[in-house]
Amino acid sequence: MILTVTLNTALDLTYRVRSLRPHGSHRVSEVSERPGGKGVNVARVLSALGHEVTVTGFAGGPTGRELHDALTAVPALTDALIPVSGPTRRTIAVVDEHTGDTTRFSEPGPPITPREWSAFQEVYEDLLASASAVALCGSLPPGVPVGAYAALIRAARSRAVPVLLDTGGEPLRRGIAARPDVVKPNADELAELTGSHEPLRATQDARRRGARAVVASLGTDGLLAATSEGRWRATAPARLHGDPGGAGDSAVAGLVSGLVERLPWADRLARATALAAASALSPVAGEFDRAAYERLRTRVTVTREADAA
Amino acid sequence: MILTVTLNTALDLTYRVRSLRPHGSHRVSEVSERPGGKGVNVARVLSALGHEVTVTGFAGGPTGRELHDALTAVPALTDALIPVSGPTRRTIAVVDEHTGDTTRFSEPGPPITPREWSAFQEVYEDLLASASAVALCGSLPPGVPVGAYAALIRAARSRAVPVLLDTGGEPLRRGIAARPDVVKPNADELAELTGSHEPLRATQDARRRGARAVVASLGTDGLLAATSEGRWRATAPARLHGDPGGAGDSAVAGLVSGLVERLPWADRLARATALAAASALSPVAGEFDRAAYERLRTRVTVTREADAA
Repeated sequence: MILTVTLNTALDLTYRVRSLRPHGSHRVSEVSERPGGKGVNVARVLSALGHEVTVTGFAGGPTGRELHDALTAVPALTDALIPVSGPTRRTIAVVDEHTGDTTRFSEPGPPITPREWSAFQEVYEDLLASASAVALCGSLPPGVPVGAYAALIRAARSRAVPVLLDTGGEPLRRGIAARPDVVKPNADELAELTGSHEPLRATQDARRRGARAVVASLGTDGLLAATSEGRWRATAPARLHGDPGGAGDSAVAGLVSGLVERLPWADRLARATALAAASALSPVAGEFDRAAYERLRTRVTVTREADAA
Repeated sequence: MILTVTLNTALDLTYRVRSLRPHGSHRVSEVSERPGGKGVNVARVLSALGHEVTVTGFAGGPTGRELHDALTAVPALTDALIPVSGPTRRTIAVVDEHTGDTTRFSEPGPPITPREWSAFQEVYEDLLASASAVALCGSLPPGVPVGAYAALIRAARSRAVPVLLDTGGEPLRRGIAARPDVVKPNADELAELTGSHEPLRATQDARRRGARAVVASLGTDGLLAATSEGRWRATAPARLHGDPGGAGDSAVAGLVSGLVERLPWADRLARATALAAASALSPVAGEFDRAAYERLRTRVTVTREADAA
């Protein structure tokens, strides 16, 4: 199975309103609730692609119970979230029916105690024994040490389980030094890590910091990859209108599934790009338009890139 | 005890964000959760005033469990909410820390089945036996008949329990014809009921439709009352800055507590006006600034009004 780690899980709510007016009162015409947090979204896409997947991380409080309940509905998914005393956070995406725009609110994550963090690490070690790959995804809740991902990467590497890291800021900086197999920063995370706003240069720089491969997700500019086998840029055939909320998570699912299936890099990138583009057509992270995905996957352009000067 | 009925209870969340930007992503710096729905807010104010209070209505799903949990923390309050299969709605108030403005989102209420509505009516009849007054507050969730408040008013009147109605639209129109002791519309509800935007005339017209007394809450213009003993206008000493979210609910608590304490109308109106003004200073419905209340209650101006021409 593929293991995804979501230390900052969430209950994701989507509200539809007629038109968002700051300082106004809005009747929500439609509410949907889904299990969330980046690694949970990745797991849902992996499940839809036909992979066995296990999710771990933390869940607590009434919102944590709702998260557990919602995960039972996902096929081929094993829920290995561990209990914590603080409540799982909510995120709210408010979709303006008039403009189609989405406004997002994210609650802070629950504080994690040292005992809870230790309990998680034990569960994680056990799960690694049967994992074909692990994806470490998203932000850290309060109380989890900033070097958490570095420790989890070292544990995976010591068991020869390939590991992908998708986070930002200091957790990315610390994590990348522990030599993950793949990191997938977005443009902002890449620039913050390297200090460079030139993606090709920044991707190579990030790779020199310890990752075996760096795949930067650049929104409508597609994916830019720096690997031991070379550099590629992958782009969808047209700029698709839509909301990019879950595109990065779907790209991660494409990369990690391609990794365990031992696809060549160009095919992994084509899959990840098509999934990301098809996800941008869905208003909900962790879901994608399957017809669009099937249509797009043969039409993604993957080109070799020369080294940056 | 005083009975408050909230057919459309809610779990009220308050989010603080640095600055609300439509189409932006916001980290919520602080989350607070409180039991909500208009009758629940009225009950919390009554509890703070030292009255024994019982809340009834519906609660369901994970949010309903949270509502029950939150009610256990309110002193002198008995939770007589009855279980329903649909989930209790959430409301979200997003407070912009920069401007102080509040933007509100209200989920739709859970659908109520005919069996659940019948079960509620039985519980309500039982509770009336020990009630000194009843306040019927707020909107109706889907499935509850539009004449619900009229039926509940008739049941209270047949047991000689005084009844206050605070709602709008067709439920108000039907309810007022069942001859409640007091109705408390706001300016919009009063105009919709009577077709008149002239408050004095509209208040008298509303009274002719069946209410023994009409107390219109007019925001910073205070309260306007038409009763069998005469007409009054009550205003706070200064226009207070603040959010009027819970002011109407606090006014209802002032009116119903004054009713059971057999205060003269002028004193009831002074209390209700001071509570409403003190509540506008609190960002959360169902709570008020007690020091401001004590300061304001002797400084409210209550004047007799002549009949409208």
